Amino acid sequence: MKLLEQMVVNDGKVYSNNVLKVDSFINHQIDPKLMLEMAKTFYEQFKNDNITKILTIEASGIAPAILVANLFNVPMVFAKKSVPSTLTRDSFYEAQVYSYTKNVTNNIIVSKDFLNKEDKVLIIDDFLANGQAVLGLSDLIDKAGASLAGVGILIEKSFQDGRKILEEKNIRVCSLCRIASLEDGKVKFNKADDEL
Amino acid sequence: MKLLEQMVVNDGKVYSNNVLKVDSFINHQIDPKLMLEMAKTFYEQFKNDNITKILTIEASGIAPAILVANLFNVPMVFAKKSVPSTLTRDSFYEAQVYSYTKNVTNNIIVSKDFLNKEDKVLIIDDFLANGQAVLGLSDLIDKAGASLAGVGILIEKSFQDGRKILEEKNIRVCSLCRIASLEDGKVKFNKADDEL
Repeated sequence: MKLLEQMVVNDGKVYSNNVLKVDSFINHQIDPKLMLEMAKTFYEQFKNDNITKILTIEASGIAPAILVANLFNVPMVFAKKSVPSTLTRDSFYEAQVYSYTKNVTNNIIVSKDFLNKEDKVLIIDDFLANGQAVLGLSDLIDKAGASLAGVGILIEKSFQDGRKILEEKNIRVCSLCRIASLEDGKVKFNKADDEL
Repeated sequence: MKLLEQMVVNDGKVYSNNVLKVDSFINHQIDPKLMLEMAKTFYEQFKNDNITKILTIEASGIAPAILVANLFNVPMVFAKKSVPSTLTRDSFYEAQVYSYTKNVTNNIIVSKDFLNKEDKVLIIDDFLANGQAVLGLSDLIDKAGASLAGVGILIEKSFQDGRKILEEKNIRVCSLCRIASLEDGKVKFNKADDEL
C-alpha cells in the first residue's frame, strides 16, 4: 500500500537494524484516515471469503480490527492477555505466545462464547515479525474448531521468520507494507501483498 | 442511548451487585454497528468543541476511540500501561491510576510528542466507575499543558463515585448509559447524558 509505505519513510524512525518506530501513526498515536484506508484494503482482499469474525490481540491490533469489522459488518473479538474476573476457568480457550524481544511466554485467551466451529475468521494485527502472536491466535481458532481465512498485517518485517512460518502452515498472509531491510537506517521494501 | 440500554438489558449479565458483564458487545467481542452508533453520538455531543485529539487508555477504550477519531478526523492517542522500548525516560508524560478492584496503582504514559498545549482533548473510555482512569488521563493532559474538553463514556456506574469526582473538578462527562443500580440482578438506569 503506497500511502503506508510513504508514511513509514516520512514518519517512521529506524532504531538499530531491526526496530522500526511507527508510534506517530500506527501504535500509540493513530492516524484515522490512514487506518481507514488500510481497513478498506483488507476488505477488498478478503471480501469474497465469507468472513464471519475479525480476531486480533490487545492492544495495538484493536484499532485496525474494529475498522475492518465495520466494513465486513461482523463482530470483532480481541484476545486478552489476562483473564477477566467475569470469566471462569473452563469458559475460555487459551494459547501461548512467545515473545522473542522480551524472552517470555504469555498466555492469551478468548471466551468460548465468541469463537465457534461455524466461524470463518480473519486475523488482523499491526506487526508481523516472528509470527508468534498470529500462531497463538491461530491456535485459539483451532481449539474453537473455527477456520482461519487469512491474516491481514499492517507492517511485515520480511527479514524475520514470521511470514515463512505462517506460509509453511498454509496460512494466507496479506501485508500492506513489507520491509525487506532496515540496515544503515534506511527502509527498503518488498512488494506489498495488495500490490500484486 | 436507547440502543445501548437495550443491549445492556438483553445481553449484559449482572454478577453480584456491582459487576456488569458486557463482554459480548463492548469489551471482548465488539458489535461494530453499536460501536459506530455510540461514536456518532459522541460526535454530536462534542462537535462544536474544536476537538484536536481523542485520548483513551489501552485496551478496551481503543475501539470506541478510533471510531470517534474518524468522525472528528483528528488523531487518536492511547495511553500505554508499560513503556515501549522506543521511548526514552524523559520522552513521555506519566500518571498514576489506582485500581479499586485490584488494589494496585499502575503507571500510564503518553509520549510527549502526541500531546501539546494547543490540544483540546476528548477522552473516551468504555467504563466509568471510580473515575481513576479518567483522572490519570486528565493528569497527562495537564502535564502536557493541553486542555480537556470532556469525557465520553459508554457505560457509567452511577452508584459509584467516578461521576461525582469528575464533576467536582468541573470535567464535563457524557455517558451514553448510566446505571443507577444492579441490585437483585436487575439493571436500573438513570437518564443518559445524550437523552437530556
